[in-house]
Amino acid sequence: MAGVQGSALAVSVSEAGGLGSLPCATLSLDVMRKELEAMRTLTAKPFNVNFFCHVQPQPDPGREAIWRATLARYFAENGVDASEIAATPGRAPFSEGAAEVLTDFRPAVVSFHFGLPPEPLLARVRGMGAKVLCSATTVDEARWLEARGVDAVIAQGTEAGGHRGNFLSEDLGAQLGTFALVPQIVDAVKVPVIAAGGIADGRGVAAAMALGASGVQVGTAYLLCPEATTSTVHRAALDSDAARVTGLTNLFSGRPARGIVNRLMRELGPMSNAVPAFPFAASALAPLRAKAESQGSGAFSPLWAGQNATGCRRIPAGVLTRELASALARVGILA
Amino acid sequence: MAGVQGSALAVSVSEAGGLGSLPCATLSLDVMRKELEAMRTLTAKPFNVNFFCHVQPQPDPGREAIWRATLARYFAENGVDASEIAATPGRAPFSEGAAEVLTDFRPAVVSFHFGLPPEPLLARVRGMGAKVLCSATTVDEARWLEARGVDAVIAQGTEAGGHRGNFLSEDLGAQLGTFALVPQIVDAVKVPVIAAGGIADGRGVAAAMALGASGVQVGTAYLLCPEATTSTVHRAALDSDAARVTGLTNLFSGRPARGIVNRLMRELGPMSNAVPAFPFAASALAPLRAKAESQGSGAFSPLWAGQNATGCRRIPAGVLTRELASALARVGILA
Repeated sequence: MAGVQGSALAVSVSEAGGLGSLPCATLSLDVMRKELEAMRTLTAKPFNVNFFCHVQPQPDPGREAIWRATLARYFAENGVDASEIAATPGRAPFSEGAAEVLTDFRPAVVSFHFGLPPEPLLARVRGMGAKVLCSATTVDEARWLEARGVDAVIAQGTEAGGHRGNFLSEDLGAQLGTFALVPQIVDAVKVPVIAAGGIADGRGVAAAMALGASGVQVGTAYLLCPEATTSTVHRAALDSDAARVTGLTNLFSGRPARGIVNRLMRELGPMSNAVPAFPFAASALAPLRAKAESQGSGAFSPLWAGQNATGCRRIPAGVLTRELASALARVGILA
Repeated sequence: MAGVQGSALAVSVSEAGGLGSLPCATLSLDVMRKELEAMRTLTAKPFNVNFFCHVQPQPDPGREAIWRATLARYFAENGVDASEIAATPGRAPFSEGAAEVLTDFRPAVVSFHFGLPPEPLLARVRGMGAKVLCSATTVDEARWLEARGVDAVIAQGTEAGGHRGNFLSEDLGAQLGTFALVPQIVDAVKVPVIAAGGIADGRGVAAAMALGASGVQVGTAYLLCPEATTSTVHRAALDSDAARVTGLTNLFSGRPARGIVNRLMRELGPMSNAVPAFPFAASALAPLRAKAESQGSGAFSPLWAGQNATGCRRIPAGVLTRELASALARVGILA
């Protein structure tokens, strides 16, 4: 969950017996190294390191200009001088540099979103002994991943919060809800399937296993844990009735992702053709977001959340992890 | 499942121990009476009678003209004289006349889609001793239904085939996947919750129960049963890879419904502002649909299906019902 957690949450989950995950998409290589050092210091348990695998596009001044024109009224309203907007580092795809850092840590598991890295890079990861996971939003994507040797497929249903992991098709209509996606992927591939999307509590864990999943990936439910770095406005939204209505939006990054509906999504419509390519949409929003957040408003912030935020509680991540795991025991998965 | 089944399928399901359902939205009162007589003759088990509860709009010649202009190229291609298109009876909402017919049969259960009928009509149904069910696509709709005294709420996740049952909001983005919807409705209301959407086999049944449902509603999986009246082109689509990609479309009726993506949906886009109000969109399509179907093409037909058509098999509905019920036994619901 890039942007809302670091090593602290991952350590707590791993220590409690889950597979904690360190998201690296928004980290510089230096910070990534520091975070991995923290992981290694604080837990001897297995953990996962997660990367995005998009192809970084060239900046397109024309599209950027369209986007800034679309946001002009908000710049005016908030006293933002658009000429002073700096390009933000944004989200970087998995790279040779990241692989080099990983080599010093040899994580048990490495997971990817938006498909897999180029084969030589993937081979380096496998060479470290890491198990490789990747998200699939359709049966076709799951088959594609299995053909390329992933050790498990994460079946990401449309209920899931944050970025859709689709990489073979941009057709959101082709993506399936968790209930339909998990069993169809289970039937389509031989590797284990990890269910993601809408799993908020023990009932969801048990249901996912009933659908044939070999494990579950839970995100949203951890967002109010003290170890998460979820912002104040994001926490407030998750803890309110607003969390009941999410939408898929490309406004915040350029790619569709599920978040709580806020002012920007309502006023521009959640999906817009005016946004630059992923990940560039975020730069122009950064000053608006900072200004609004300083005033306690999430009007311009990505408030990532899945369709079931009822599992969000202000409890330690380890407690939540053990609660979720106890559902596995109840369905006879754990002794 | 109006249009793809009648009493034969409902009888087989009820005889096998399920709650067979007779959809009446597309039936004249005379045909409805004949179908109910068939049900009463062929089964002594409880069954459900289902109605739509939309408010029938006035025909709008302006919107109809826009719709016909949108379809003009297809009329030309298929030699259809648009001036000869007749208004089709379409889908009628629950009415005094329907209640009058029901009175002679006193079904155990009556279910509604698109909300509830006006209170006096609903009181008549309750007065017959029928249990009342209704679909909800959001937590708000479930609470609204409970406040009006329904005996159970059908939680219709976005995976479900056919018409979305939404009635408080037309915002499709507010509707949840089955995995997220069922537990949230279970927590929000005290009445039993019936899960619908993406349930294709015993795994789905078990998963729905794990999410807290008290029962399941299965539609798509019955569409290839010999007792269903599913058309030849519809059966062919369900039995092909095409069934893997469905979409929500308002083209066929004027309201959003999930069906297998076909030529009309691809070419006009699945959701269009050019369609007349529900249920009038169907009339202008009728001659195109008839012509195409006579040539073995479903290009202009509503190919209703949920997001998981893998449960569709050419087996008797009673066999399928017993298979699904056996999953309840496995999760300890049935002895």
